[in-house]
Amino acid sequence: MGSLGRTIHIDRDRTYNGHSRELPPIATIDSGDVLELDLVDSSGGQLHQGSTVADVPGLDISRANPTLGPILVHDARPGDVVQVDILEARPQTWAYTVQFPGNGILPDLYPDPWIHIWHIEDGEGWFRDDIRVPLAPFPGVVCTAAAVDPPYPATHVPIRVGGNLDLKQLVAGSSIYLPVEVEGALLSIGDPHWAQGDGEVCGSAIEGAIDCTIRVTLRRDLSIDGPELDVRGPIERPSAAAAGYHVTTGIGPDLRRAARDSVARMIEHLVAHRGVDRQEAYALCSVAVDLRISEVVDAPNWVVSAFLPHDLFRA
Amino acid sequence: MGSLGRTIHIDRDRTYNGHSRELPPIATIDSGDVLELDLVDSSGGQLHQGSTVADVPGLDISRANPTLGPILVHDARPGDVVQVDILEARPQTWAYTVQFPGNGILPDLYPDPWIHIWHIEDGEGWFRDDIRVPLAPFPGVVCTAAAVDPPYPATHVPIRVGGNLDLKQLVAGSSIYLPVEVEGALLSIGDPHWAQGDGEVCGSAIEGAIDCTIRVTLRRDLSIDGPELDVRGPIERPSAAAAGYHVTTGIGPDLRRAARDSVARMIEHLVAHRGVDRQEAYALCSVAVDLRISEVVDAPNWVVSAFLPHDLFRA
Repeated sequence: MGSLGRTIHIDRDRTYNGHSRELPPIATIDSGDVLELDLVDSSGGQLHQGSTVADVPGLDISRANPTLGPILVHDARPGDVVQVDILEARPQTWAYTVQFPGNGILPDLYPDPWIHIWHIEDGEGWFRDDIRVPLAPFPGVVCTAAAVDPPYPATHVPIRVGGNLDLKQLVAGSSIYLPVEVEGALLSIGDPHWAQGDGEVCGSAIEGAIDCTIRVTLRRDLSIDGPELDVRGPIERPSAAAAGYHVTTGIGPDLRRAARDSVARMIEHLVAHRGVDRQEAYALCSVAVDLRISEVVDAPNWVVSAFLPHDLFRA
Repeated sequence: MGSLGRTIHIDRDRTYNGHSRELPPIATIDSGDVLELDLVDSSGGQLHQGSTVADVPGLDISRANPTLGPILVHDARPGDVVQVDILEARPQTWAYTVQFPGNGILPDLYPDPWIHIWHIEDGEGWFRDDIRVPLAPFPGVVCTAAAVDPPYPATHVPIRVGGNLDLKQLVAGSSIYLPVEVEGALLSIGDPHWAQGDGEVCGSAIEGAIDCTIRVTLRRDLSIDGPELDVRGPIERPSAAAAGYHVTTGIGPDLRRAARDSVARMIEHLVAHRGVDRQEAYALCSVAVDLRISEVVDAPNWVVSAFLPHDLFRA
C-alpha cells in the first residue's frame, strides 16, 4: 500500500504550538502516503547557534515543542490505529542542550540556567574534544488528537494517544502505532532530538531541526489503548557494546525517587572520574545515560539503574 | 593483586536464610582471593525438576533466596568499598519460573499459582519448541552487611549495601561495587538467575542453581553510597539486535503504575499475536522483557517502555 502512496512535502511554516482537536488540519492524506517534514527545533527559533546562557532564562516555554500538523488521515475513525514509519531522519546544521530552572528530575539541585551548543562532526555531537555523543535522531513528539482535549497539550505532556513521548528508539527504521480517537486521526509530529538517554533527565536532549520522512498507514487490524512501537534494528551501539558501561543504582519504595538517586550518583561518578562539572554531568546524563527498571517486585524497594556508555569518552 | 589471591571453594551447605550483621562468618578471605561458590536455587530445595503447580501454594517464602555467607573480608572497614568480579557463572541442570499469588507487579490480575520447569538445551531455556530464552546467568543477591539491620533481610529486599538487586547485567565479566558499613564487610551472595528481564515483573526469573566464581577486592580508592556496576561487554544479544523488538508503553504521573500498564499491554500483545495464554505471557515478560524509563521530565506524565525481543520466537 505504501508504494502506491503519494509523497507530500510539509514545510516548517505549517508549525503550531500547543495541541487541540479543534485545530484545523494543514493537510489531508491517504493511508500509504509518504510525508517529508521539516521539523523545527524545540525552542521554535528562540535559540540559535550563537545563543549563550544569558538567553535561557527568557525562553518562552509556551512556544516550546512547535509541531507540524494536524494532518488529517482520510477515512480514519475512532478505534482505528495509525502506523507511522520513520523512513529517514536527517539532522540539520546545529543543535543545543539546555538546563531550564525548574525543569528536569533534579530541579532543587540545579537552580541555574545552562546551555551547550553542539559542534557536529562525522555523525557525532562534540561536547568536548574528548567527549562525543553519537547521534541517533528521532521525533520526540508524535500524537493523534484525543477525543477530549487534556488539560495540557500532548505536545508537552505524553498521554494515551502519544505526544511528548521522548521514545529514543523511534529512529529511522522504527514504527509507532497510535490509537485514533477522532475522525481523521489528526496526526502531529515535532520536537526533534538528535540523541537522548532513556529518561531525558535534565529535560533537554541534543535538540535540533531534522528533515524527517515518514509513511502513514491506517490499520484496522490492530487494537491498542496506548502507543506501541516496532524497533527493527539494534538498540545498542556497537561502540558502546565494545566499550562497556558504568552503572549507578537508586533503591527505594518510589521509582521516581530511585531514578533521581541513580542520576545523582551518576553525576557524582562523572564529576569524580571524568573531569566534568556538575552541570556538564547533568547534561551528559540527559543526552546519553539510559534509565532501566532493574526490579519492581522485591517489595517494598525497587531498583532503577543508570547506564553510562564508556564510548562517549575518547583518549 | 587478584593474581596473588588464593582460590577458596564454598559449598552449598554453607547457605543461610535471611540476613543479619549478627550472623557468624563462614569464611575469612583476603582482598584478591577467588571464591568458587555453589549457589542453590531461590526455592532452597523446595522445588525440583518434577514439581507441578500443586507445589507452588505451599512454598515457604521465608526459605526463599538462601544465600552463601557471610564472608569476612580481612581488613575491610566502614567507608571502604568491596568489588566483586563475576569471573564465571555456570548454570546447573534444571530451572523453574513460578507465579506466587501476591507477588509480582500485577497481583490483582494474577491470583493463581503457576509454574514452568525449563528444558535447557544449547544455552537456551525452552518455553515451548517455538519459544526459547537465551541464558545469561547472574546472582540476583549480592550484599554486604548494613550497619543497622533493616526491618527486612537484604536477601529479600535491596538496600543501600545491595541485596536482592536483580541486576541482570551482573553476568560473567561484570563487577559490582558495594559500600562497606561493618568491620569485615560480611559479603553474601545467592538467588541465581539464568535469565531475567529488567523488572522481573512476575517476581520470578529463570531460577536455578549456578556455580559462580568471583574475585573479591577491597577498594579504598573509591567512595560510593549505593551499589554500582561495571559492565564490560554488550548488553544486547546479537540475535535480539537482528530480530528487533515490539515495545508497549505505560504513561502517567506514577512510574510504578506506568510500568504496570506497559506490562499489562505487553501481555495483551503476547496473547493476541504469539499464541500464549495470560500466565505464559506474564512469565515471558518476567524472564525476557526489559523495562526502560523513556522520559521522567515531561510533567506531569512519565513514560515507561517494555521491550520484547523478537528473537525469542522461532519458526
